[in-house]
Amino acid sequence: MRHSYQCPLRWSDMDAFGHVNNVVYLRYLEEARIDFLARAARQTDPEAFTGGTVVARHEIDYLRQLVHQTDPVTVELWVEKLTAASATFAYEIRDPASEGGPYVRARTVVVPYNLREGHLRRLSPVERSFLEGYFDDSHSG
Amino acid sequence: MRHSYQCPLRWSDMDAFGHVNNVVYLRYLEEARIDFLARAARQTDPEAFTGGTVVARHEIDYLRQLVHQTDPVTVELWVEKLTAASATFAYEIRDPASEGGPYVRARTVVVPYNLREGHLRRLSPVERSFLEGYFDDSHSG
Amino acid sequence: MRHSYQCPLRWSDMDAFGHVNNVVYLRYLEEARIDFLARAARQTDPEAFTGGTVVARHEIDYLRQLVHQTDPVTVELWVEKLTAASATFAYEIRDPASEGGPYVRARTVVVPYNLREGHLRRLSPVERSFLEGYFDDSHSG
Amino acid sequence: MRHSYQCPLRWSDMDAFGHVNNVVYLRYLEEARIDFLARAARQTDPEAFTGGTVVARHEIDYLRQLVHQTDPVTVELWVEKLTAASATFAYEIRDPASEGGPYVRARTVVVPYNLREGHLRRLSPVERSFLEGYFDDSHSG
Repeated sequence: MRHSYQCPLRWSDMDAFGHVNNVVYLRYLEEARIDFLARAARQTDPEAFTGGTVVARHEIDYLRQLVHQTDPVTVELWVEKLTAASATFAYEIRDPASEGGPYVRARTVVVPYNLREGHLRRLSPVERSFLEGYFDDSHSG
Repeated sequence: MRHSYQCPLRWSDMDAFGHVNNVVYLRYLEEARIDFLARAARQTDPEAFTGGTVVARHEIDYLRQLVHQTDPVTVELWVEKLTAASATFAYEIRDPASEGGPYVRARTVVVPYNLREGHLRRLSPVERSFLEGYFDDSHSG
Repeated sequence: MRHSYQCPLRWSDMDAFGHVNNVVYLRYLEEARIDFLARAARQTDPEAFTGGTVVARHEIDYLRQLVHQTDPVTVELWVEKLTAASATFAYEIRDPASEGGPYVRARTVVVPYNLREGHLRRLSPVERSFLEGYFDDSHSG
Repeated sequence: MRHSYQCPLRWSDMDAFGHVNNVVYLRYLEEARIDFLARAARQTDPEAFTGGTVVARHEIDYLRQLVHQTDPVTVELWVEKLTAASATFAYEIRDPASEGGPYVRARTVVVPYNLREGHLRRLSPVERSFLEGYFDDSHSG
């Protein structure tokens, strides 16, 4: 299953070349992650990820350029890998109509954080179970 | 040889967790690339990269957290790979004093652009020669 | 009549104090102006404001603090004053439920621009007529 | 006396029109205020403004457009008015060479904050004395 987030653009997301700036797509990914971890996951468990998460790594490939538009773009997010203390998310940013292929493909490694005690921590069983529901099965036989 | 750029921070680079936000480091890399391509390269050839470049890919690893400080951070940039129509840059972001290891290690693939005609283009011989001067030899025997 | 724009927040709109940063509200005003001038006005006249507008002045009063939320805030925008070559907009940013009073009251002077010829210009009759429809009459007897 | 802050620009400060965006100048003012309140004032008293300040109002007039440049702009900041619990700063943003008049003139009302107890507070005598040194006397006879 994939998590789908409708991400509104801002006119100021464009740079002096008149396209959405490459750095800004990482804001779209951030918004999708927050929607996934701080809203969707907490419908399963109100305590899930309450101390936040730390980004350990991003990979991002830019496939097509995007100009500001009134309609949101769709960020699809799914879980690619889980370890005891990290989750790897994969994403595609595309038009809601899915025409023309994705603008961006990306991958982020996040580590759950214990904000109160100030250190990284392991995934809780409830968090792990929630995340396992988002392993991508769209290409499976 | 490495290109070294002193990158000033802004207080607003911090997010609600009180650290420099992971997305903002890509701004620091952007500033270092612009200093390298639009200032340093043009001391060699005033026409170098005048049509801009397009980012095709970023990889970034976050190693240590950074809090706003008055002193700039150092972005070291070097060339890792050249093809006919792309350059791969590697970077480290560190304290000028180099204490405590880098905050970030990253890699960007850029493609030169022909702004007037609106398409990607090959590296010119002068650009290639400039970039070859920045292959990293710091670890060579 | 007031123009009403539902403005989505981003988590990164908060600063290190954990509130929406004072500068970011001007982005919300910018989004509302663009929705007003580049979308609503062009439903009246497709040529309206096509060369853009230049901001000549902002005034902004901060009344209440705002924390990131999933729901958008409402930016209400109306026309306070028109001259031959400028429009003064007033705004309030508030919760859709209008509880607790506005977060922000602000005012912006904009000047229409002729992008092709690179100079400021007068309002066209169609633009003026469109804007006159948004003089605020909410407090009139 | 005026406080003078050399503010570095970033390439991304420009918007799709190819000029520094009107909202970004408020970041330059923020950087100047932080340099003034969190660095300069603490050379007088290490406890000055340690709980931060809250912005109550901005006024900003845009006089000339600015394109990204390698050299910083100068933000001159001085104190226009003090009350028991607020300070009004005035600013000009200009080229270091002071040619061509300021890009921006602005004014900000700030209120000192007690971060630990979560409320606004009065200026301390040491803070007041520091600020009084920055009443502008440049136009006095």
